[in-house]
Amino acid sequence: MIIKKEIKYLSSLKQKKNRLLNNELLIEGSKLILDAFKHKQNIKKIIYSNKDSNFTQIRNHAKKYNVNMELCNQKDAERISDTKNSQQIFALLNFKAPIKIDDNATIDDNIIIIDGVSDPGNLGTILRTCSWFGIYNIILTHNSVELFNPKTIRSGMGAHFHIKNTYKDSIDNIIKFLKKNNYEIIAADLNGTSLKKYSPKNKNWALILGNEAHGISKKSIDSANTIINIEGKKTMESLNVAEAASIIMYHLYQGI
Amino acid sequence: MIIKKEIKYLSSLKQKKNRLLNNELLIEGSKLILDAFKHKQNIKKIIYSNKDSNFTQIRNHAKKYNVNMELCNQKDAERISDTKNSQQIFALLNFKAPIKIDDNATIDDNIIIIDGVSDPGNLGTILRTCSWFGIYNIILTHNSVELFNPKTIRSGMGAHFHIKNTYKDSIDNIIKFLKKNNYEIIAADLNGTSLKKYSPKNKNWALILGNEAHGISKKSIDSANTIINIEGKKTMESLNVAEAASIIMYHLYQGI
Repeated sequence: MIIKKEIKYLSSLKQKKNRLLNNELLIEGSKLILDAFKHKQNIKKIIYSNKDSNFTQIRNHAKKYNVNMELCNQKDAERISDTKNSQQIFALLNFKAPIKIDDNATIDDNIIIIDGVSDPGNLGTILRTCSWFGIYNIILTHNSVELFNPKTIRSGMGAHFHIKNTYKDSIDNIIKFLKKNNYEIIAADLNGTSLKKYSPKNKNWALILGNEAHGISKKSIDSANTIINIEGKKTMESLNVAEAASIIMYHLYQGI
Repeated sequence: MIIKKEIKYLSSLKQKKNRLLNNELLIEGSKLILDAFKHKQNIKKIIYSNKDSNFTQIRNHAKKYNVNMELCNQKDAERISDTKNSQQIFALLNFKAPIKIDDNATIDDNIIIIDGVSDPGNLGTILRTCSWFGIYNIILTHNSVELFNPKTIRSGMGAHFHIKNTYKDSIDNIIKFLKKNNYEIIAADLNGTSLKKYSPKNKNWALILGNEAHGISKKSIDSANTIINIEGKKTMESLNVAEAASIIMYHLYQGI
């Protein structure tokens, strides 16, 4: 049986500062945990509260990879869970936080730039779509929501485990990196040219996605090689950022 | 100043049964309320708690349309609000709940069928995308989330005010209605044909969207004229339903 001090620590990981202090987070639910095993994530231990569920698959993986399984009671499970209906099984994960772009940074593939997206659910959904279309490189600005926010993990549905490169830096440094590496920079804006008619000219492109309320930053707009617009009936002021992202990624996926 | 009994009633509208009993709901925030005025929604009264904000535009509309503005204190505002950071201004709205499909039901335009979508945020996002692409007819199955759930209203960002026709019925009756009216029925599934190559043959189409975990119902699959698939890298098991909806609507918008 798990000790109280440990429960306190696991519960403390709901807060960003505690996650970043140790680069550890808690993921919840059998499906996500099995996915983490499949993608060779650094799982420190499994915590579960339901004695009746045997979690056979997880138990087998835990044995194979030498990961401890610790029992806790239901009240403790509710305490460490981030959801209303806890799935009663958790994994403590060690993650690699996004780092600053330095001279060694190299990416030779398409990139999604998160320029101030603030809703954790939106970010997770964007990652899920990225993964669907084979985009595994993510760069975030400092004012974006945390990549490993529990809600982002949840809506990402395992997309986090597919990420190949992730950086977090100022928009200035991000743009400098993209220009240096000859990326075609794409930004979406209501005043852009029609997405329908657009296909990138360069080998690699980077798509900048902005904040839910304020859009992408002026610096991003100014840096873009192409500003595109998703044409519509204009009854709404805008599309949700995750929807715009999905549509653009779909379009780009067709053309290349 | 608003009376306690009224606050109790407004607060009770957080529950579905109370909303449906009187066909009344509370919307929150200046932007949404101004949008409701613009789209001639049936606003019964405005409730606000911030004496310092003068809400000039709302005040002008309220005067023009003879809508009462009632002051409440901050504690009451928090009580009736559905969000953590209350915007301190609310409108009580009378809404038309979706009705059963009967012999008088006529729609002569494209339709989105909500076949068991359960997340209120997803439904709101779908409505927002519908509105962007000019689709104003929504039919829901009984097991779908409520059209007027506060979270659906919030993520809909005013799309609710653009809906022209809305029905709620069994999937059997919905399919019967679509077949009778010669609709081309489209369903998305991982085993379908490529969306890229598809364009509808009929004048009107209906797109069926399914539950987040279980997809669309077997009856829907069986009824579909075309089952389409959004091609991807298959690193993820699926796309979020709202993302799939956005991509399909974008694609269909281009072709017709």
